[in-house]
Amino acid sequence: MSQDNSKLNTRSAAQTAAAVNSGDIKALEVAYASLETIERLNPTVNAFTDVLGERALLEARAVDDAIAEGRTLPLAGVPYAVKNLYDVEGLTTRAGAKINRENPPASADATLVRKLKDAGAVLVGATHMGEYAYDFTGESAHDGICRNPHDTGHMTGGSSSGSAAATAAGMVPLAMGSDTNGSIRVPASFCGLFGLKPTYGRLSRAGTYPFVGSLDHLGPLTRSAEDLALIFDVLQGHDPADPAQANHPEIETHNRLQEDIGPLRIAVAGGYFRDKALPDALNAVDFVAKALGASLEIDIPEAARARAAAYVITAAEGSTLHLGRILERPQDFDPETRDRFLAGTMVPAIWVQQAQRFRSWFRDLFRKIFENVDVLLAPATPFPALPSGTKTFTIGGETMPARPNIGLFTQPISFIGLPAVTVPVWLEGATLPIGVQVIAPAWREDLALRVAHHLEQTGICRAPVANLTA
Amino acid sequence: MSQDNSKLNTRSAAQTAAAVNSGDIKALEVAYASLETIERLNPTVNAFTDVLGERALLEARAVDDAIAEGRTLPLAGVPYAVKNLYDVEGLTTRAGAKINRENPPASADATLVRKLKDAGAVLVGATHMGEYAYDFTGESAHDGICRNPHDTGHMTGGSSSGSAAATAAGMVPLAMGSDTNGSIRVPASFCGLFGLKPTYGRLSRAGTYPFVGSLDHLGPLTRSAEDLALIFDVLQGHDPADPAQANHPEIETHNRLQEDIGPLRIAVAGGYFRDKALPDALNAVDFVAKALGASLEIDIPEAARARAAAYVITAAEGSTLHLGRILERPQDFDPETRDRFLAGTMVPAIWVQQAQRFRSWFRDLFRKIFENVDVLLAPATPFPALPSGTKTFTIGGETMPARPNIGLFTQPISFIGLPAVTVPVWLEGATLPIGVQVIAPAWREDLALRVAHHLEQTGICRAPVANLTA
Repeated sequence: MSQDNSKLNTRSAAQTAAAVNSGDIKALEVAYASLETIERLNPTVNAFTDVLGERALLEARAVDDAIAEGRTLPLAGVPYAVKNLYDVEGLTTRAGAKINRENPPASADATLVRKLKDAGAVLVGATHMGEYAYDFTGESAHDGICRNPHDTGHMTGGSSSGSAAATAAGMVPLAMGSDTNGSIRVPASFCGLFGLKPTYGRLSRAGTYPFVGSLDHLGPLTRSAEDLALIFDVLQGHDPADPAQANHPEIETHNRLQEDIGPLRIAVAGGYFRDKALPDALNAVDFVAKALGASLEIDIPEAARARAAAYVITAAEGSTLHLGRILERPQDFDPETRDRFLAGTMVPAIWVQQAQRFRSWFRDLFRKIFENVDVLLAPATPFPALPSGTKTFTIGGETMPARPNIGLFTQPISFIGLPAVTVPVWLEGATLPIGVQVIAPAWREDLALRVAHHLEQTGICRAPVANLTA
Repeated sequence: MSQDNSKLNTRSAAQTAAAVNSGDIKALEVAYASLETIERLNPTVNAFTDVLGERALLEARAVDDAIAEGRTLPLAGVPYAVKNLYDVEGLTTRAGAKINRENPPASADATLVRKLKDAGAVLVGATHMGEYAYDFTGESAHDGICRNPHDTGHMTGGSSSGSAAATAAGMVPLAMGSDTNGSIRVPASFCGLFGLKPTYGRLSRAGTYPFVGSLDHLGPLTRSAEDLALIFDVLQGHDPADPAQANHPEIETHNRLQEDIGPLRIAVAGGYFRDKALPDALNAVDFVAKALGASLEIDIPEAARARAAAYVITAAEGSTLHLGRILERPQDFDPETRDRFLAGTMVPAIWVQQAQRFRSWFRDLFRKIFENVDVLLAPATPFPALPSGTKTFTIGGETMPARPNIGLFTQPISFIGLPAVTVPVWLEGATLPIGVQVIAPAWREDLALRVAHHLEQTGICRAPVANLTA
């Protein structure tokens, strides 16, 4: 069984769906393989907080029935996991918090879970995350450390820690995360995955636990760029249940992956995005840029200010959301989160107002940049995964706390809602991967996905299942 | 000359426009009469900070030329004034501030000034206002006290103090104001005028000096309900130069004034709107309600909270706008304004966030109320004009500072952007008028204007020119 599983578990979502649709394999077999792998590896990796064996087998059987009836499903039998802030019917939505464990189970699936189910995907469980998504490490006082499958002594990144670890460990080919300031792109970088943070407002957030309404995005992590596009096309579509979602026309991405990227104008983000990166991050961007023939570097002014603005908005909006809990039950918070939320209650309104005004300016700046460029490349993180428990790091002589600062390259991008795909790079001799952000104009996920797919096809980027034994 | 003027000066805008269009009188004569009245009465009233004799005569001549060519203009020859926060080409936009006097003259007229000019109205000057519109008294450290024409020992109300005083004194039949928390409705109440605060987003704010972007409204003050409708129809229309303006379909109001108000469901706002009002305000509302046969009283829950929320948003947004000035040049501010802006810099962001969240709730509450009611009546101010220099007042045993609290009935309504017409009531034996708010659902200015017009036609409400001698 174990040998078969390892073969099944390295398959992409597209490969699994093709095999199930063609009848080569049953969805039930795939589900069993996924559940067995979780059972075997989760004690080491700690990716799952809830495993949903019964639901998975029921869903898999339903898929097999549908296939037997002659239907074809875009994600037939693809096992997947969701960060534990997605509502799953019958399961309490934890959002990484101890306090939330007291909540009643969700009465219905989140919109995106429903869409995945309708597409034939099979939900196997809910994953580890930093408390209330306020984390870049993958280390939780409530749920323990989520470990990087490529080196269990290193961080997964956060806050979609478990979703990244589960995908990198081969437990699932697909897991859903959320990204407010980098929580998909950071763990994708540390765990060597493809991750998509779509345009702000693109995907429905109905039935998910919020963090910062004006910055929250949902999106997938996978081991294949093709999978990202396949899944993204399933997830798109207007949902009246999410009043904040923009009713923007859908865009075809999977069918357009093969289009030549030759005509695309690709540039490297300069200034802050070079100055704050350590050598591995710079080398990874240069490696990708060279492969794409991207020689232009574009200075991005005021990116540090953009990050500060996102930081201030996050602290204030997040603290407002949790105000009652933080004032009444501080002892039930993760200490690392509690202190940040407490600090957030003291942010002056004028800071937030200034941050919001600057946001318009920064958005306009990128609109102008994207008149001359189609895609921008930037590091996803300043370095590969840090050793577990690292409390500070130093860049350019400046030592800063690790937890809030790992997202320093992702935060300015989500601040203005631009879509970005993280692509995984393995530098020569490296034992850990590192991610590069492929950033596109608003609503043009297709451009970033085409570039990511090209990098995958040409072998520049790859996301192998981690070589974990347990 | 003086006798002729007094006749001209009591005319409504509609009457003047009719007389000019028919050739009975020249726009130039009307302009001269207005300018002469300003010259005679302004030393007493202090309504104007800038008189624009030359521009007025040029505009009046242009109107006379147009009439001579056979054209008809909706506001032919109607003299008007604007609060000195409207851009007037060649004039520095003061917004009541000493610091702003250093600014260069405006290079173009505000959109609404342009629309009034195109309609044949004649601009005679810019009017007194509280510094940066943060005022309900009409008393300015920079420009002195603007005096109530009905009793010069009393307040005009603010911050559209000069616009109200100029209209009540018969200097003009029409003046433009702005209303963030009540700055049209309060001086309309104190000076015995009809005043319209339209729906938030209805009229273009392009070319005017802002105070609180999410609360600022522009609108007219007149001595006639018919004039309000006439002018409102001229002012409507989408303006790409104001990105915050809603592109909402225009609504015909002047042509619909005669429609029977019988079918309208009119109710009195209860709870807070009764509890906080002193006898004159209650009597004024009851007088109007009785005349309209409105016997239903609807409790409005959480109105005090709505006011607090508007207050917090105002302090924070206003202080952000003026942050550089308040920190660098506090000595150049009106002390009454300075201290409020300084306090605003210290408002925590969580307060503003909570205020904004509550705003949605309160807006939804009124949506539901307006399913069963077409128009709501509420006091415009808790009392008639206070004596000049009054620093506190007492309601229900609670003594509070006058300046920030005069708008306690207007603030909860503008908070959610509802249109409201203030109608003037003269209670039996009263020497000063008091206003009643006629509040309609969003985008239904026509309903409030029809009710106001009915009250005018039946003699319940009237706005005579003050009996001022100078």
